[in-house]
Amino acid sequence: MTTMVTESTRNGVDTATLFATRDAVKAAPEAAQFQFRARNEWISGTHSRSTIHGFYGVGEERTHERSFHFDADHPAVLVGRDNGPTPVEYVLHALATCLTAGLANIAAARGIRLTEVRSTVSGDIDLNGILGLTPDVRNGYQNIAVRFTVKGDAPAEKLREIVEQSTARSAVYDVITNHVPVTIDVDTE
Amino acid sequence: MTTMVTESTRNGVDTATLFATRDAVKAAPEAAQFQFRARNEWISGTHSRSTIHGFYGVGEERTHERSFHFDADHPAVLVGRDNGPTPVEYVLHALATCLTAGLANIAAARGIRLTEVRSTVSGDIDLNGILGLTPDVRNGYQNIAVRFTVKGDAPAEKLREIVEQSTARSAVYDVITNHVPVTIDVDTE
Repeated sequence: MTTMVTESTRNGVDTATLFATRDAVKAAPEAAQFQFRARNEWISGTHSRSTIHGFYGVGEERTHERSFHFDADHPAVLVGRDNGPTPVEYVLHALATCLTAGLANIAAARGIRLTEVRSTVSGDIDLNGILGLTPDVRNGYQNIAVRFTVKGDAPAEKLREIVEQSTARSAVYDVITNHVPVTIDVDTE
Repeated sequence: MTTMVTESTRNGVDTATLFATRDAVKAAPEAAQFQFRARNEWISGTHSRSTIHGFYGVGEERTHERSFHFDADHPAVLVGRDNGPTPVEYVLHALATCLTAGLANIAAARGIRLTEVRSTVSGDIDLNGILGLTPDVRNGYQNIAVRFTVKGDAPAEKLREIVEQSTARSAVYDVITNHVPVTIDVDTE
Protein backbone atom coordinates (compact mmCIF):
# COMPACT_ATOMS: atom_id res chain seq x y z
CA MET A 1 0.00 0.00 0.00
CA THR A 2 2.79 2.40 0.86
CA THR A 3 4.26 1.90 -2.58
CA MET A 4 0.92 2.61 -4.22
CA VAL A 5 0.47 5.82 -2.27
CA THR A 6 3.98 6.90 -3.13
CA GLU A 7 3.40 6.18 -6.80
CA SER A 8 0.15 8.10 -6.97
CA THR A 9 1.59 11.10 -5.13
CA ARG A 10 4.13 12.96 -7.21
CA ASN A 11 5.27 16.56 -6.66
CA GLY A 12 2.85 16.63 -3.75
CA VAL A 13 0.04 16.07 -6.25
CA ASP A 14 -2.33 13.19 -5.64
CA THR A 15 -2.53 12.17 -9.28
CA ALA A 16 -5.19 9.50 -8.64
CA THR A 17 -7.48 12.18 -7.20
CA LEU A 18 -6.48 14.58 -9.97
CA PHE A 19 -7.51 12.09 -12.66
CA ALA A 20 -10.65 11.09 -10.71
CA THR A 21 -11.66 14.75 -10.48
CA ARG A 22 -11.14 15.20 -14.22
CA ASP A 23 -13.24 12.09 -14.91
CA ALA A 24 -15.96 13.25 -12.52
CA VAL A 25 -16.20 16.61 -14.30
CA LYS A 26 -16.20 14.84 -17.66
CA ALA A 27 -19.22 12.82 -16.51
CA ALA A 28 -20.98 15.83 -14.95
CA PRO A 29 -19.74 19.02 -16.66
CA GLU A 30 -21.94 21.26 -14.47
CA ALA A 31 -19.74 20.33 -11.46
CA ALA A 32 -17.08 22.56 -13.03
CA GLN A 33 -19.11 25.75 -12.62
CA PHE A 34 -17.31 27.75 -9.92
CA GLN A 35 -17.72 31.23 -8.52
CA PHE A 36 -14.88 32.79 -6.55
CA ARG A 37 -15.24 35.92 -4.43
CA ALA A 38 -13.34 38.55 -2.48
CA ARG A 39 -14.94 40.99 -0.04
CA ASN A 40 -13.12 44.26 0.50
CA GLU A 41 -13.34 47.01 3.10
CA TRP A 42 -11.70 50.40 2.75
CA ILE A 43 -9.59 51.40 5.75
CA SER A 44 -7.98 54.77 4.96
CA GLY A 45 -6.34 56.44 2.00
CA THR A 46 -5.16 53.78 -0.46
CA HIS A 47 -5.25 51.09 2.24
CA SER A 48 -7.97 48.44 2.10
CA ARG A 49 -8.36 44.86 3.26
CA SER A 50 -9.94 41.88 1.53
CA THR A 51 -11.39 38.71 2.98
CA ILE A 52 -11.49 35.53 0.93
CA HIS A 53 -13.54 32.70 2.37
CA GLY A 54 -16.67 31.45 0.57
CA PHE A 55 -16.94 30.15 -2.96
CA TYR A 56 -19.32 28.06 -5.04
CA GLY A 57 -18.31 24.87 -6.79
CA VAL A 58 -19.30 21.28 -7.55
CA GLY A 59 -22.94 22.17 -7.07
CA GLU A 60 -22.86 23.85 -3.68
CA GLU A 61 -21.67 26.74 -1.50
CA ARG A 62 -18.30 26.00 0.06
CA THR A 63 -15.73 27.72 2.24
CA HIS A 64 -11.98 27.61 2.51
CA GLU A 65 -10.75 25.89 5.67
CA ARG A 66 -10.14 29.36 7.10
CA SER A 67 -10.69 33.00 6.17
CA PHE A 68 -7.81 34.66 4.37
CA HIS A 69 -7.17 38.39 4.86
CA PHE A 70 -4.94 40.57 2.71
CA ASP A 71 -4.07 44.24 2.87
CA ALA A 72 -3.20 46.38 -0.11
CA ASP A 73 -1.85 49.91 -0.12
CA HIS A 74 0.48 52.20 -2.04
CA PRO A 75 4.06 52.85 -0.96
CA ALA A 76 4.96 56.35 0.25
CA VAL A 77 6.33 57.29 -3.17
CA LEU A 78 2.79 56.73 -4.48
CA VAL A 79 1.18 58.69 -1.64
CA GLY A 80 0.27 55.66 0.50
CA ARG A 81 1.47 54.20 3.80
CA ASP A 82 2.85 50.87 2.52
CA ASN A 83 0.53 48.71 4.64
CA GLY A 84 0.60 46.07 1.91
CA PRO A 85 1.65 45.51 -1.68
CA THR A 86 -0.01 47.51 -4.42
CA PRO A 87 -3.00 45.94 -6.21
CA VAL A 88 -0.93 45.49 -9.37
CA GLU A 89 1.70 43.47 -7.48
CA TYR A 90 -1.02 41.03 -6.41
CA VAL A 91 -1.76 40.50 -10.10
CA LEU A 92 1.86 39.36 -10.66
CA HIS A 93 1.62 37.05 -7.64
CA ALA A 94 -1.61 35.58 -9.03
CA LEU A 95 0.06 34.86 -12.37
CA ALA A 96 3.12 33.24 -10.78
CA THR A 97 1.05 31.01 -8.49
CA CYS A 98 -1.37 29.95 -11.24
CA LEU A 99 1.38 28.93 -13.66
CA THR A 100 3.28 27.17 -10.87
CA ALA A 101 0.27 25.16 -9.66
CA GLY A 102 -0.34 24.06 -13.24
CA LEU A 103 3.32 23.08 -13.64
CA ALA A 104 3.18 20.78 -10.62
CA ASN A 105 -0.08 19.15 -11.76
CA ILE A 106 1.02 18.66 -15.36
CA ALA A 107 4.45 17.34 -14.37
CA ALA A 108 2.79 14.87 -11.98
CA ALA A 109 0.36 13.74 -14.68
CA ARG A 110 3.30 13.17 -17.05
CA GLY A 111 5.30 11.24 -14.47
CA ILE A 112 7.96 13.89 -14.02
CA ARG A 113 9.31 14.70 -10.56
CA LEU A 114 10.09 18.37 -10.07
CA THR A 115 12.86 19.34 -7.68
CA GLU A 116 12.66 23.13 -7.97
CA VAL A 117 10.35 25.70 -9.48
CA ARG A 118 11.07 29.39 -9.03
CA SER A 119 9.84 32.38 -10.92
CA THR A 120 10.08 36.12 -11.05
CA VAL A 121 7.22 38.02 -12.61
CA SER A 122 7.76 41.67 -13.48
CA GLY A 123 5.38 44.18 -14.96
CA ASP A 124 6.19 47.54 -16.53
CA ILE A 125 3.73 50.33 -15.98
CA ASP A 126 3.76 54.00 -16.91
CA LEU A 127 1.84 55.92 -14.25
CA ASN A 128 1.23 58.79 -16.64
CA GLY A 129 -1.79 56.63 -17.50
CA ILE A 130 -3.50 56.40 -14.12
CA LEU A 131 -2.50 59.97 -13.27
CA GLY A 132 -4.46 61.04 -16.35
CA LEU A 133 -1.52 63.03 -17.71
CA THR A 134 -1.02 61.31 -21.06
CA PRO A 135 -4.23 60.18 -22.79
CA ASP A 136 -2.54 57.56 -24.99
CA VAL A 137 -0.82 55.78 -22.07
CA ARG A 138 -2.84 52.84 -20.74
CA ASN A 139 -3.62 52.51 -17.03
CA GLY A 140 -2.39 48.95 -16.64
CA TYR A 141 0.80 47.05 -17.33
CA GLN A 142 2.31 47.61 -20.75
CA ASN A 143 3.92 44.19 -20.61
CA ILE A 144 4.59 41.41 -18.12
CA ALA A 145 7.63 39.13 -18.16
CA VAL A 146 7.82 35.76 -16.39
CA ARG A 147 11.16 34.08 -15.82
CA PHE A 148 10.98 30.47 -14.64
CA THR A 149 13.68 28.22 -13.28
CA VAL A 150 12.41 24.64 -13.48
CA LYS A 151 14.38 21.57 -12.42
CA GLY A 152 13.33 17.92 -12.33
CA ASP A 153 14.06 14.41 -13.56
CA ALA A 154 13.36 15.14 -17.21
CA PRO A 155 15.29 16.65 -20.13
CA ALA A 156 15.17 20.41 -20.56
CA GLU A 157 12.83 20.03 -23.53
CA LYS A 158 10.25 18.13 -21.45
CA LEU A 159 10.44 20.71 -18.67
CA ARG A 160 9.85 23.50 -21.20
CA GLU A 161 6.86 21.62 -22.59
CA ILE A 162 5.34 21.50 -19.11
CA VAL A 163 5.63 25.29 -18.82
CA GLU A 164 4.03 25.64 -22.26
CA GLN A 165 1.13 23.38 -21.30
CA SER A 166 0.68 25.16 -17.96
CA THR A 167 0.50 28.48 -19.82
CA ALA A 168 -2.01 27.02 -22.27
CA ARG A 169 -4.26 25.98 -19.36
CA SER A 170 -3.74 28.86 -16.93
CA ALA A 171 -6.79 30.77 -15.73
CA VAL A 172 -4.82 33.86 -14.66
CA TYR A 173 -2.73 33.90 -17.86
CA ASP A 174 -6.00 33.89 -19.79
CA VAL A 175 -7.47 36.71 -17.66
CA ILE A 176 -4.37 38.87 -18.21
CA THR A 177 -3.81 38.17 -21.89
CA ASN A 178 -7.46 38.25 -22.92
CA HIS A 179 -10.49 40.38 -22.22
CA VAL A 180 -12.78 39.61 -19.25
CA PRO A 181 -16.02 41.62 -19.07
CA VAL A 182 -16.43 43.39 -15.72
CA THR A 183 -19.70 44.89 -14.46
CA ILE A 184 -19.71 47.40 -11.62
CA ASP A 185 -22.78 48.19 -9.52
CA VAL A 186 -22.87 50.92 -6.87
CA ASP A 187 -25.15 51.10 -3.85
CA THR A 188 -25.09 54.43 -2.02
CA GLU A 189 -27.90 53.79 0.46
CA MET B 1 -1.04 74.92 10.90
CA THR B 2 -3.23 72.20 12.35
CA THR B 3 -6.15 73.46 10.35
CA MET B 4 -4.11 73.41 7.17
CA VAL B 5 -3.00 69.83 7.76
CA THR B 6 -6.57 68.79 8.47
CA GLU B 7 -7.77 70.43 5.29
CA SER B 8 -5.13 68.79 3.13
CA THR B 9 -5.77 65.31 4.58
CA ARG B 10 -9.10 63.87 3.55
CA ASN B 11 -10.12 60.19 3.59
CA GLY B 12 -6.63 59.51 4.91
CA VAL B 13 -5.27 60.90 1.64
CA ASP B 14 -2.69 63.67 1.81
CA THR B 15 -4.13 65.64 -1.08
CA ALA B 16 -1.31 68.20 -1.06
CA THR B 17 1.20 65.40 -1.62
CA LEU B 18 -1.13 63.79 -4.15
CA PHE B 19 -1.29 66.96 -6.22
CA ALA B 20 2.45 67.60 -5.76
CA THR B 21 3.20 64.09 -7.03
CA ARG B 22 0.98 64.63 -10.06
CA ASP B 23 2.72 67.95 -10.79
CA ALA B 24 6.16 66.37 -10.35
CA VAL B 25 5.31 63.65 -12.87
CA LYS B 26 3.87 66.25 -15.23
CA ALA B 27 7.21 68.08 -15.10
CA ALA B 28 9.28 64.89 -15.43
CA PRO B 29 7.17 62.19 -17.16
CA GLU B 30 9.96 59.59 -16.92
CA ALA B 31 9.49 59.53 -13.12
CA ALA B 32 6.25 57.65 -13.79
CA GLN B 33 8.02 54.58 -15.24
CA PHE B 34 7.54 51.82 -12.67
CA GLN B 35 8.32 48.13 -12.62
CA PHE B 36 6.63 45.91 -10.04
CA ARG B 37 7.71 42.36 -9.26
CA ALA B 38 6.77 39.19 -7.45
CA ARG B 39 9.14 36.30 -6.79
CA ASN B 40 7.57 32.89 -6.37
CA GLU B 41 8.78 29.57 -5.02
CA TRP B 42 6.94 26.28 -5.47
CA ILE B 43 6.40 24.38 -2.23
CA SER B 44 4.39 21.24 -3.04
CA GLY B 45 1.45 20.33 -5.23
CA THR B 46 -0.56 23.44 -6.05
CA HIS B 47 0.96 25.32 -3.09
CA SER B 48 3.48 28.09 -3.74
CA ARG B 49 4.60 31.25 -1.98
CA SER B 50 5.40 34.68 -3.38
CA THR B 51 7.57 37.42 -1.99
CA ILE B 52 6.92 41.04 -2.90
CA HIS B 53 9.59 43.52 -1.88
CA GLY B 54 11.59 45.41 -4.51
CA PHE B 55 10.29 47.62 -7.26
CA TYR B 56 11.56 50.36 -9.56
CA GLY B 57 10.07 53.83 -9.72
CA VAL B 58 10.84 57.55 -9.84
CA GLY B 59 14.22 56.79 -11.38
CA GLU B 60 15.60 54.26 -8.93
CA GLU B 61 15.37 50.84 -7.32
CA ARG B 62 13.16 50.90 -4.23
CA THR B 63 11.79 48.50 -1.67
CA HIS B 64 8.61 48.27 0.34
CA GLU B 65 9.12 48.99 4.03
CA ARG B 66 9.00 45.23 4.61
CA SER B 67 8.81 42.01 2.57
CA PHE B 68 5.32 40.70 1.95
CA HIS B 69 4.73 36.94 1.65
CA PHE B 70 1.61 35.28 0.29
CA ASP B 71 0.66 31.64 -0.15
CA ALA B 72 -1.62 30.34 -2.85
CA ASP B 73 -3.06 26.86 -3.18
CA HIS B 74 -6.15 25.01 -4.34
CA PRO B 75 -8.87 23.86 -1.93
CA ALA B 76 -9.33 20.10 -1.43
CA VAL B 77 -12.19 20.05 -3.94
CA LEU B 78 -9.64 21.17 -6.53
CA VAL B 79 -7.03 18.64 -5.41
CA GLY B 80 -5.04 21.02 -3.24
CA ARG B 81 -4.45 21.46 0.51
CA ASP B 82 -6.04 24.91 0.96
CA ASN B 83 -2.87 26.57 2.25
CA GLY B 84 -4.04 29.83 0.69
CA PRO B 85 -6.58 31.26 -1.69
CA THR B 86 -6.52 30.20 -5.31
CA PRO B 87 -4.60 32.38 -7.78
CA VAL B 88 -7.87 33.53 -9.37
CA GLU B 89 -9.17 34.78 -6.01
CA TYR B 90 -6.11 37.01 -5.71
CA VAL B 91 -7.14 38.58 -9.03
CA LEU B 92 -10.50 39.58 -7.51
CA HIS B 93 -8.74 41.00 -4.45
CA ALA B 94 -6.43 43.00 -6.74
CA LEU B 95 -9.41 44.47 -8.58
CA ALA B 96 -11.26 45.41 -5.37
CA THR B 97 -8.22 47.08 -3.82
CA CYS B 98 -7.29 48.98 -6.98
CA LEU B 99 -10.76 50.43 -7.47
CA THR B 100 -11.03 51.25 -3.75
CA ALA B 101 -7.67 53.06 -3.59
CA GLY B 102 -8.73 55.11 -6.59
CA LEU B 103 -12.07 55.91 -4.96
CA ALA B 104 -10.39 57.34 -1.87
CA ASN B 105 -7.94 59.41 -3.91
CA ILE B 106 -10.54 60.77 -6.30
CA ALA B 107 -13.01 61.56 -3.52
CA ALA B 108 -10.27 63.40 -1.61
CA ALA B 109 -9.31 65.37 -4.72
CA ARG B 110 -12.96 66.36 -5.19
CA GLY B 111 -13.39 67.40 -1.58
CA ILE B 112 -15.72 64.54 -0.66
CA ARG B 113 -15.36 62.75 2.67
CA LEU B 114 -16.07 59.03 2.46
CA THR B 115 -17.47 57.26 5.51
CA GLU B 116 -17.69 53.73 4.14
CA VAL B 117 -16.52 51.81 1.10
CA ARG B 118 -17.22 48.10 0.82
CA SER B 119 -17.21 45.82 -2.16
CA THR B 120 -17.73 42.24 -3.16
CA VAL B 121 -16.07 41.02 -6.31
CA SER B 122 -17.19 37.71 -7.77
CA GLY B 123 -15.93 35.86 -10.81
CA ASP B 124 -17.60 33.00 -12.66
CA ILE B 125 -15.36 30.34 -14.08
CA ASP B 126 -16.06 27.05 -15.85
CA LEU B 127 -13.27 24.63 -14.99
CA ASN B 128 -14.02 22.56 -18.08
CA GLY B 129 -11.62 25.07 -19.63
CA ILE B 130 -8.52 24.50 -17.52
CA LEU B 131 -9.25 20.78 -17.30
CA GLY B 132 -9.02 20.71 -21.09
CA LEU B 133 -12.38 18.96 -21.39
CA THR B 134 -14.25 21.49 -23.54
CA PRO B 135 -12.16 23.25 -26.18
CA ASP B 136 -14.49 26.25 -26.54
CA VAL B 137 -14.54 27.07 -22.81
CA ARG B 138 -11.94 29.64 -21.83
CA ASN B 139 -9.50 29.02 -18.98
CA GLY B 140 -10.18 32.26 -17.12
CA TYR B 141 -13.19 34.05 -15.71
CA GLN B 142 -16.14 34.33 -18.05
CA ASN B 143 -17.25 37.47 -16.26
CA ILE B 144 -16.52 39.42 -13.09
CA ALA B 145 -19.07 41.43 -11.10
CA VAL B 146 -18.19 44.18 -8.62
CA ARG B 147 -20.77 45.43 -6.12
CA PHE B 148 -19.80 48.58 -4.25
CA THR B 149 -21.40 50.20 -1.24
CA VAL B 150 -20.13 53.78 -1.04
CA LYS B 151 -21.16 56.31 1.61
CA GLY B 152 -19.95 59.86 2.16
CA ASP B 153 -20.90 63.51 2.42
CA ALA B 154 -22.03 63.86 -1.18
CA PRO B 155 -25.19 63.05 -3.14
CA ALA B 156 -25.54 59.55 -4.59
CA GLU B 157 -24.84 60.88 -8.07
CA LYS B 158 -21.47 62.32 -6.99
CA LEU B 159 -20.52 59.08 -5.25
CA ARG B 160 -21.37 57.14 -8.41
CA GLU B 161 -19.24 59.50 -10.48
CA ILE B 162 -16.27 58.77 -8.22
CA VAL B 163 -16.66 55.04 -8.86
CA GLU B 164 -16.86 55.73 -12.60
CA GLN B 165 -13.70 57.83 -12.52
CA SER B 166 -11.87 55.26 -10.40
CA THR B 167 -12.81 52.58 -12.94
CA ALA B 168 -11.64 54.83 -15.79
CA ARG B 169 -8.22 55.18 -14.09
CA SER B 170 -7.74 51.73 -12.57
CA ALA B 171 -4.63 49.77 -13.50
CA VAL B 172 -6.09 46.39 -12.51
CA TYR B 173 -9.42 47.07 -14.24
CA ASP B 174 -7.42 47.81 -17.40
CA VAL B 175 -5.33 44.64 -17.03
CA ILE B 176 -8.46 42.50 -16.65
CA THR B 177 -10.62 44.11 -19.30
CA ASN B 178 -7.88 44.55 -21.89
CA HIS B 179 -5.02 42.54 -23.28
CA VAL B 180 -1.57 42.63 -21.63
CA PRO B 181 1.25 40.89 -23.52
CA VAL B 182 3.04 38.31 -21.35
CA THR B 183 6.40 36.75 -22.22
CA ILE B 184 7.57 33.57 -20.50
CA ASP B 185 11.20 32.45 -20.38
CA VAL B 186 12.32 29.15 -18.91
CA ASP B 187 15.72 28.31 -17.47
CA THR B 188 16.29 24.61 -16.78
CA GLU B 189 19.96 24.77 -15.79
